[in-house]
Amino acid sequence: MDHATRHPISRFPVPALDELPEDIRARIAAVQEKAGFVPNVFWVLAHRPDEIRAFFAYHDALMEKPGPITKAEREMIVVATSAVNHCHYCVIAHGAILRIRAKQPRLADQVAINYLNADLTPRQQAMLAFGVKVAERSHEVNDADLAALRAHGMTDDEIWDIGAIAALFALSNRMANLMALRPNDEFYVMGR
Amino acid sequence: MDHATRHPISRFPVPALDELPEDIRARIAAVQEKAGFVPNVFWVLAHRPDEIRAFFAYHDALMEKPGPITKAEREMIVVATSAVNHCHYCVIAHGAILRIRAKQPRLADQVAINYLNADLTPRQQAMLAFGVKVAERSHEVNDADLAALRAHGMTDDEIWDIGAIAALFALSNRMANLMALRPNDEFYVMGR
Amino acid sequence: MDHATRHPISRFPVPALDELPEDIRARIAAVQEKAGFVPNVFWVLAHRPDEIRAFFAYHDALMEKPGPITKAEREMIVVATSAVNHCHYCVIAHGAILRIRAKQPRLADQVAINYLNADLTPRQQAMLAFGVKVAERSHEVNDADLAALRAHGMTDDEIWDIGAIAALFALSNRMANLMALRPNDEFYVMGR
Amino acid sequence: MDHATRHPISRFPVPALDELPEDIRARIAAVQEKAGFVPNVFWVLAHRPDEIRAFFAYHDALMEKPGPITKAEREMIVVATSAVNHCHYCVIAHGAILRIRAKQPRLADQVAINYLNADLTPRQQAMLAFGVKVAERSHEVNDADLAALRAHGMTDDEIWDIGAIAALFALSNRMANLMALRPNDEFYVMGR
Amino acid sequence: MDHATRHPISRFPVPALDELPEDIRARIAAVQEKAGFVPNVFWVLAHRPDEIRAFFAYHDALMEKPGPITKAEREMIVVATSAVNHCHYCVIAHGAILRIRAKQPRLADQVAINYLNADLTPRQQAMLAFGVKVAERSHEVNDADLAALRAHGMTDDEIWDIGAIAALFALSNRMANLMALRPNDEFYVMGR
Amino acid sequence: MDHATRHPISRFPVPALDELPEDIRARIAAVQEKAGFVPNVFWVLAHRPDEIRAFFAYHDALMEKPGPITKAEREMIVVATSAVNHCHYCVIAHGAILRIRAKQPRLADQVAINYLNADLTPRQQAMLAFGVKVAERSHEVNDADLAALRAHGMTDDEIWDIGAIAALFALSNRMANLMALRPNDEFYVMGR
Repeated sequence: MDHATRHPISRFPVPALDELPEDIRARIAAVQEKAGFVPNVFWVLAHRPDEIRAFFAYHDALMEKPGPITKAEREMIVVATSAVNHCHYCVIAHGAILRIRAKQPRLADQVAINYLNADLTPRQQAMLAFGVKVAERSHEVNDADLAALRAHGMTDDEIWDIGAIAALFALSNRMANLMALRPNDEFYVMGR
Repeated sequence: MDHATRHPISRFPVPALDELPEDIRARIAAVQEKAGFVPNVFWVLAHRPDEIRAFFAYHDALMEKPGPITKAEREMIVVATSAVNHCHYCVIAHGAILRIRAKQPRLADQVAINYLNADLTPRQQAMLAFGVKVAERSHEVNDADLAALRAHGMTDDEIWDIGAIAALFALSNRMANLMALRPNDEFYVMGR
Repeated sequence: MDHATRHPISRFPVPALDELPEDIRARIAAVQEKAGFVPNVFWVLAHRPDEIRAFFAYHDALMEKPGPITKAEREMIVVATSAVNHCHYCVIAHGAILRIRAKQPRLADQVAINYLNADLTPRQQAMLAFGVKVAERSHEVNDADLAALRAHGMTDDEIWDIGAIAALFALSNRMANLMALRPNDEFYVMGR
Repeated sequence: MDHATRHPISRFPVPALDELPEDIRARIAAVQEKAGFVPNVFWVLAHRPDEIRAFFAYHDALMEKPGPITKAEREMIVVATSAVNHCHYCVIAHGAILRIRAKQPRLADQVAINYLNADLTPRQQAMLAFGVKVAERSHEVNDADLAALRAHGMTDDEIWDIGAIAALFALSNRMANLMALRPNDEFYVMGR
Repeated sequence: MDHATRHPISRFPVPALDELPEDIRARIAAVQEKAGFVPNVFWVLAHRPDEIRAFFAYHDALMEKPGPITKAEREMIVVATSAVNHCHYCVIAHGAILRIRAKQPRLADQVAINYLNADLTPRQQAMLAFGVKVAERSHEVNDADLAALRAHGMTDDEIWDIGAIAALFALSNRMANLMALRPNDEFYVMGR
Repeated sequence: MDHATRHPISRFPVPALDELPEDIRARIAAVQEKAGFVPNVFWVLAHRPDEIRAFFAYHDALMEKPGPITKAEREMIVVATSAVNHCHYCVIAHGAILRIRAKQPRLADQVAINYLNADLTPRQQAMLAFGVKVAERSHEVNDADLAALRAHGMTDDEIWDIGAIAALFALSNRMANLMALRPNDEFYVMGR
């Protein structure tokens, strides 16, 4: 019995490639081309075409956006909040992307275990504190929280980005945990 | 000073209608036509066209879907999990929709305060218990949880729906709390 | 099978009117006269005459008291702390009284879901923050908490009132939850 | 500076005996006669005559009641739930009464620190588990909880007593913590 | 059936004195000589000679050390943090030692129930606040916590002591709870 | 400014090698010889010779012990409970040892993020569930917990080992967090 049989990637049925709509097959082909493998999240969401399209549209709008919050910093927010939610897939997969984007091989593990002691700038600490607050107790977000971020030079637009990334991965973490979504083996070693 | 000035609908800037892309203006016009007013969520998300499009695509895929889990039951899941997250907007707005779809004027308040004592069938209680678990501690979801739902005749497809609705509103609640999004006055009285 | 049979108002036996002592029957008659219906709390507590007398004596001493903390504000404290305790009866019944006394049809729902985002004055926010602290972690109440209330002009007498109302409904919420006490249908719509 | 000056018995003003209404002075005289000292709770509540009357009426109805739940067992419920609420006064004062009523000099300390490891019968363990549930998360009380108590031969009347004692001391603990009410030195050593 | 049979001192097997290594028998003899009885912790750990040696070596290094933090204050930290962990043995046994070392018969009970309202100096309050933080959420310890202790004149060496005592009893409490370790009857009354 | 200056390995002073007692220098030399580097924990504890000796005596008694619970499984317990305590040093350092001892390069990350979804046998799942219970709420450990482990064939001796490892790292995690102890860079990549 091989690895994949012993360890299925989801608690739910996973479709075969040729069962998928054309646009989703194209997206899978593109990521395979770029990354060299297909992250499991594509396979497990694909049986719900409308949901996977919406998810990646949301994801790309927030995670691929240029701006003062760098792409590496966006991944930091994902890793910190996914760790709060004990999401195996997101911590491992986005930890890999964080290592690569930040060019810091130890940062993802630090952020996942306890961001308070990680090698971060004060501005990055403030970003993660806000992201984690949105993840854990968003109903207590108040004007003082926003003022603390503005003291680091952040605009409304950046504050929205931090909160929205934490919110999107609140969704993503719950879906991955619902499925017991298994990370690809590749992610564990990328960027170390 | 009028009501809207004293009580802004969001902590973040809200665009004017004529600043919005055509497709979003059309969506706003359609909901105005159907509901008789524009729910505030449309105004406050509209300055981020890609995000609002993705959000409503995801929302419609899960909330407008026909099937064994009725539209009223989908709203129950929204109200129960949004109450856990203390989301003012979602409890009030989806509470109104729940009253209308379930034709039960008292159910939304019951579910919001303590679904364990609400007037629900055992199958509905099981649905909400699962949705709330996904909302609060999704990393503990296990095979026994799924078996409990299957004992009520639910399929994988329905179980996914429950979890996905809880996950989507994990996002939605955090965005609304980030903004301090204010419900329209209309929602408080609809369906009572 | 009618509504009351399907949905009993308590997990415990409820006496008939003619089984009750004279003074309790008189109190029930008075509230029926004034409100137009008998709130269920009177029926379910009545089989313990000494307890119901003590409860309403305590209740009236705190809730009917004139003073700088208005009767509407006393109801706000009840609603905010009863929501913390997920008490179906108290949130619905006192929410109705709050709407009527404050002449604000939306305030009760706001306070119940997240008082931090409700339409309140800073002094009212401070009152509710203190009441909720007494409800949730009274052993941490300290001199700084009292100083914060005094900064809003409150006296020792008013501070006691806030704490005592939170304490009385800590009792009341637990009794109502013990019984699964069902609110009268009338409360859901009063004052909207 | 003497002991009482350094350590006031309440954060709030305490009236002199001759400022009190006749009935409360009589109650204080009676307890002084019986116990040999006046428990501080009488002094600190006395400036609110209606509240102290209601409190002791409620207290006596539940704590002095004969029946299958002994007076010692009623004190156990008080000690276990007051420990959950970190109420200095109630654990010390009712711990003393528990030692005397149960004639077990070590039981109060055991129950206060961790009732799960205390020297109790299975029926007493079930009583305390239920009382603590009412103290901590009464909204989750359900039919299975009541069935567990009935399996120990308990009636509805006894179940109500357990829940009502836990509820009354939810009030009492919060009042004592609000005041930082100081136990009399006598309580620490009674019954050891 | 005698007391010890009904109430074993541990869930795990307890060796007889003549089964123990010579050095551990000597230590037991010495404590018997000094205290007049053998604290049960010696019996229950003795079946693991290497562990008991290491435990008492660690214990003596921290608890018998002279210095600005007095031996009584070291016991305060033990009692406060052991109460947080609901450790029956440690609260009772070290409560006794605290009463004796501090010559204050009521302090141990106060610290165990709610140190925030205990008769302590501001410096002692700061010590216990830090010890309890290390016990409950050490990953949030930060430079501001250390600065707060330095403001009371404490050195790095003293701060380490507070943290290390809280850490050692994090171990000790868990071992005692694992065993359901029973305190000797003598401890309940010593120093009162 | 080099790496070590920017990122000190402890909040507390770290002694130079030649300031240390002979036996501790020998232990450091031995670990350097065996591992190729000196884990930072040796440096930061060394200024307290009695404490470091006791710590490693305790550690070796539990972690180097042969028996039915393998050395890899002992490391699993360390990683799972250290993750609960958000201990940066212990998760990284013992994660490395777990990878090496278990010869499974992905297991440490899985256990650290959510052991419930890790690639473990049912017996290992039961071990970690018990260890985490000892770490988080040891006062609730009961006979049913022990029975669950015995159902996997475990003896009292093995159950003690699991609990004692969780207890020792309750200490170790708190010390490392107190110091903000920094893992050596080597640990991040060992065994991947």
